[in-house]
Amino acid sequence: MKLPQIIDTDIHPMPKSEDEIKSYIPMPYRRRYTFDSYKYYSQPVQESRLDVKISGNDWIASNPDIVMEEHMDRYNVEYGILLPRAFVSSNPFIDMANNICIGFNDWLMDKWLEKNNKQGRFKGSILVNPQDPIAAAKEIERCANHPHMVQVMVDSGSRAPFGHRQFYPIYEMCEKYDLPFALHPGTDGVGINDSNTLGYPASFIEYHTLLCTGYMSHLVSFITEGVFERFPRLKVVLVEGGVSWIPPVLWRLDAEYKALREEVPWMKKRPFEYFTENVRVTTQPLEVPDNKQHMWTMLEALDAQNTLMFSSDYSHWDFDAPDYIMRSIPKHLIDPVFSETARRLYKLPNKDLNLEGEKSETLQSL
Amino acid sequence: MKLPQIIDTDIHPMPKSEDEIKSYIPMPYRRRYTFDSYKYYSQPVQESRLDVKISGNDWIASNPDIVMEEHMDRYNVEYGILLPRAFVSSNPFIDMANNICIGFNDWLMDKWLEKNNKQGRFKGSILVNPQDPIAAAKEIERCANHPHMVQVMVDSGSRAPFGHRQFYPIYEMCEKYDLPFALHPGTDGVGINDSNTLGYPASFIEYHTLLCTGYMSHLVSFITEGVFERFPRLKVVLVEGGVSWIPPVLWRLDAEYKALREEVPWMKKRPFEYFTENVRVTTQPLEVPDNKQHMWTMLEALDAQNTLMFSSDYSHWDFDAPDYIMRSIPKHLIDPVFSETARRLYKLPNKDLNLEGEKSETLQSL
Repeated sequence: MKLPQIIDTDIHPMPKSEDEIKSYIPMPYRRRYTFDSYKYYSQPVQESRLDVKISGNDWIASNPDIVMEEHMDRYNVEYGILLPRAFVSSNPFIDMANNICIGFNDWLMDKWLEKNNKQGRFKGSILVNPQDPIAAAKEIERCANHPHMVQVMVDSGSRAPFGHRQFYPIYEMCEKYDLPFALHPGTDGVGINDSNTLGYPASFIEYHTLLCTGYMSHLVSFITEGVFERFPRLKVVLVEGGVSWIPPVLWRLDAEYKALREEVPWMKKRPFEYFTENVRVTTQPLEVPDNKQHMWTMLEALDAQNTLMFSSDYSHWDFDAPDYIMRSIPKHLIDPVFSETARRLYKLPNKDLNLEGEKSETLQSL
Repeated sequence: MKLPQIIDTDIHPMPKSEDEIKSYIPMPYRRRYTFDSYKYYSQPVQESRLDVKISGNDWIASNPDIVMEEHMDRYNVEYGILLPRAFVSSNPFIDMANNICIGFNDWLMDKWLEKNNKQGRFKGSILVNPQDPIAAAKEIERCANHPHMVQVMVDSGSRAPFGHRQFYPIYEMCEKYDLPFALHPGTDGVGINDSNTLGYPASFIEYHTLLCTGYMSHLVSFITEGVFERFPRLKVVLVEGGVSWIPPVLWRLDAEYKALREEVPWMKKRPFEYFTENVRVTTQPLEVPDNKQHMWTMLEALDAQNTLMFSSDYSHWDFDAPDYIMRSIPKHLIDPVFSETARRLYKLPNKDLNLEGEKSETLQSL
């Protein structure tokens, strides 16, 4: 059949490569552009520290021996809690997300917790998909008895705040196996997940600053929905969500509670009591205002002595070195923040490492 | 035609009245239920103070003479800024919303600002619909020259954070007529608007505590999107959004700014500088932690001397009486917070009222 002359009104041309189209995009956006950049809020400068060691064709932080040497031994880190990043919470394919969790958990147990785990100092997080709480509970059950798995983890991004009843199967398992439930930033405002702001941010700096608002949603939801009354032994760990916003938000909730407790009769205690009993917070990124005393007042207000735990965020761009944080907090908080609170939470026996870490030197210079 | 016997599978029975169905709903939900309760987060106990005077069949706070006598004169309130509540930001019918604004503005000018405005002490807010920035700009232009209109107001609820470029026509008019742009809580997570949390709250206490997160979104958006560089004389007033969360959020933004300013090259100054120059905050509800010093540190950190203004939220349930707030802040903040900062912002001449208000007595007892 000979076709008549036709007009086709929908044809898609493609650049040969990212580089081909990038050469046409003005700077600095040329440098930042990737085919994936429409999918999420990506760090515009660099995702990881530029000084992190890599061997051969490895990814950054993909070689346990290098992480052990370069980070754990160097800074006298007795235990390091590993939180792999798989971003399952925004994956619209529920069974794909569940199976990514299985894969990451088996990989972590194999490559980091069993092999290459010098003195058993790496401890792992069981990654679960909160979109499917029943499957998540099963995955916890499958991994909970591994001797080096010490907590359950999810992304902070979600379509519902974590106090909602749909998540109870996860908390039941956390209580059963005495595993803290850790939130780590990610997947907020990505794909199928709600934004962590009113409307959607327009830049990474806006998104990243406001990550804390997602944590506020979850924290207030846990408390007002009565999760800590139903699961009194549940511990929630707010990882990398910021620190100093906690007292202001709990002050607000406390005032509301005094007037409105009729609405939440299952709330038996004031918000700070639940916080101190059931919630732990990690340091990175610790706010460092010009006037250090302002931050120290907030540390006092949130009972940092019992609630705050050191975290480095190794190997990301905003990594906090231990000595930097040691200089940023009052001296009496150093032991609780740098080891004792995490030791109690994760039940970690005291190891005498006898390493030549930088910690002792740092402490002398404080 | 004689019908055969039929089966109809969709018929809607209605209760005769709210009361009829309420008598079947268990307490305490029986008391709280209304036909409208599916539409928004409503206060479960009471919306307004129970002790507010009303005359005849008036609504609470609907009679200017009573408000003048019971609130303004009683507490020696020299000027009162009026913010009517019309909830236009979540109205899906854009032209309906625009015309509600016209109605409320004309009503306010007629009944409160021209008639019944003893000594000109009531000052008004021009209500606009941010869903239609062009119409909002026209409405500002229409009302801006009224001698008693002193600011523009919107609900905090929105489908986009207020730094977005679509809102520029509103800010142009605010600058042109030197009118502050005030945000008041409302319509967050209602109908067509995004929630102020990650996912949707399950109670009023959760919603109301987390109102502040919507304000965080807007504040960070204003700063990171460069609104205050493009409109350097614009003043934004954060009404009823809380106070003590501001330093923690700006500390976070400040740290991000140091690392990521390449992404927002129009940001020429550190976040606190924009805040102090371009943003004002109102007191109600002022956080009152058990340890007052914690709050006073936050007041110092947010430069309350130059940024904080008294507000009562009359006649709502969580009304703050002036004497209560006077006892809650350091003495040196009383003049700036209770009159001087608002006097400068709204350009209000000093009136010598010679009233027998409660203020002088209160001050002696401090």
